[in-house]
Amino acid sequence: MITIAVDAMGSDLYPKADVEGAVLAAKEYRVNIILVGDENLIKPELEKYETSKINIQVVHAPEILCMDDKGLSLVLKARRPNSKNSMAVGLDLVKAGKASAFVTAGNTGAASVSAYFRLGTIPGVDRPALAPVFPTAKGFCIVLDVGANPDVKPINILQFAIMGKIYAEKVRNIENPTIGIISNGEEAGKGNQLVKDSYPLLSSSNLNFIGNVEGKEVLGGKVDVAVTDGFTGNVMLKTSEAVAKLIIDKIKENIKSGGLAANIGGLLIKKSMGNIKKLMDPSEEGAAPLLGINGLVFIGHGRSNSTAIKNAIRIAKQASVSGVLDSIRESVKESLENID
Amino acid sequence: MITIAVDAMGSDLYPKADVEGAVLAAKEYRVNIILVGDENLIKPELEKYETSKINIQVVHAPEILCMDDKGLSLVLKARRPNSKNSMAVGLDLVKAGKASAFVTAGNTGAASVSAYFRLGTIPGVDRPALAPVFPTAKGFCIVLDVGANPDVKPINILQFAIMGKIYAEKVRNIENPTIGIISNGEEAGKGNQLVKDSYPLLSSSNLNFIGNVEGKEVLGGKVDVAVTDGFTGNVMLKTSEAVAKLIIDKIKENIKSGGLAANIGGLLIKKSMGNIKKLMDPSEEGAAPLLGINGLVFIGHGRSNSTAIKNAIRIAKQASVSGVLDSIRESVKESLENID
Repeated sequence: MITIAVDAMGSDLYPKADVEGAVLAAKEYRVNIILVGDENLIKPELEKYETSKINIQVVHAPEILCMDDKGLSLVLKARRPNSKNSMAVGLDLVKAGKASAFVTAGNTGAASVSAYFRLGTIPGVDRPALAPVFPTAKGFCIVLDVGANPDVKPINILQFAIMGKIYAEKVRNIENPTIGIISNGEEAGKGNQLVKDSYPLLSSSNLNFIGNVEGKEVLGGKVDVAVTDGFTGNVMLKTSEAVAKLIIDKIKENIKSGGLAANIGGLLIKKSMGNIKKLMDPSEEGAAPLLGINGLVFIGHGRSNSTAIKNAIRIAKQASVSGVLDSIRESVKESLENID
Repeated sequence: MITIAVDAMGSDLYPKADVEGAVLAAKEYRVNIILVGDENLIKPELEKYETSKINIQVVHAPEILCMDDKGLSLVLKARRPNSKNSMAVGLDLVKAGKASAFVTAGNTGAASVSAYFRLGTIPGVDRPALAPVFPTAKGFCIVLDVGANPDVKPINILQFAIMGKIYAEKVRNIENPTIGIISNGEEAGKGNQLVKDSYPLLSSSNLNFIGNVEGKEVLGGKVDVAVTDGFTGNVMLKTSEAVAKLIIDKIKENIKSGGLAANIGGLLIKKSMGNIKKLMDPSEEGAAPLLGINGLVFIGHGRSNSTAIKNAIRIAKQASVSGVLDSIRESVKESLENID
């Protein structure tokens, strides 16, 4: 059975949401869990659940990396061989082969830096990429990078495309996924210097590259994978979340202040609006993979609830059985041979 | 009375929407209009309206710049002294002092290039910026640049901030507008190289600079002006439009397929939803100024209807009486003196 290491100290509601999510996942997805974190906090939480028929271990890690850990202090905590924070200990379990993947809802920066130092990158990859899915009119689109690398080179964009393609195929079961590069216009030739320089690399690759894409193609579901630098991807992600929040808040406000008819209407469409919230809710997907790391690492939203943690563990299990890591290793190697 | 030159061949529905919008604006805002374009198409359209009490002239321009005009061919058409396309002729009216501003719903690229060659830039500005407003929880935020310049330098970002500030003050009546730079994190120090290099210029200026902002600050209404490179701004704008469309489409879909109760609910909230559509509708604002050009130029969406054209003319009139152009000239000059 697959074993997943879960950061019990990751979410804003740690360890409650993390422990509950792990218990739910162990029951629902037949997966072994190692909860990593302060056992004095985890054990009382775990005792609230019936766990006799599932396999949940606790590995003690007394320290936590948090939002305040950054810069050199973060690097040192992430690198030290004997680090006792939950991320370091969890990632070491993956490195030692004791877990197939590590799931955390902790700070994205801390998780990325820790993963980079403890697991390293896949040979040939110098920039790992965070690859969440965006909801679209037709399903979803994997967008990468959304944050790990604000400044990248065309070769990184090509590698993002390769990694996104394989993840879409192996973990999301998309056959021959279509790939676009995010730009400020659909026409070939549009773009900033990075897009212009990356375009020929993508179009001469054996990827199913369809060219430049804009918001309407990504959200409209015209591509399965969209690549961009981590700065642009991060702005896209956060703008999408903010626009969704604005619209939903404004609809509520307008219904509330719209008189009796609108109030009744609001009640009658409550279920439909619930579906929309679900569509835009990051907890449905749970977590995003940090692709390019030499091991499976999934990073969830700090605001993760137990459903998000549960879903993140489901995705981590799917990735573990899919062989996605080996496929990325091979494809990156091949692509480098083709360029040489 | 202020005179505005309006491209009659700009919108996708030309000359119908453009002419109708001009007639509506002339009646509502007490402004003289010069419609520029093919008089054989404009005159029959204009005859549909009662125009005896308003001042609308037609200046003949037999040619049109369209989506297919790009690259060198566009440059040549935009530059030629005797160009007879509606953008060139309209911009020449501004240059000659016969109109205070030019409004077009034509192709953004063609309008920007034409404005650049025919009116030039304000001394000291080497990059004009397209500056639309985004709807926010509290009102609006001016975001610039959203398209004119995919690759810029820190000095351009500083100039965008100066121009955005003055436009917010003079045309949108915001006192001491707050200014943010769009980044992949709120904390100072976050950002790509451009953000990191622009930050000190902004914070040492006399602008009301509040630091890095993300989607939630822009859409949440925490800043009046947000500056970014044209690539990122364009991706933000198009992503916002696409997310808004996705959500509204999905709500409709869910209500439609949600059974009788949801269907009735949908009818009862129709007015509230109409307000949302209005909030997200670019025609409410009409057009965005191309700031930094040595003349007032407003560029609207190709999908502009007559309301959008009318509103664009209203904004163009406001800008004309506001003295925004002179203020930008002075402030750019001052800022360059401070840097030297």
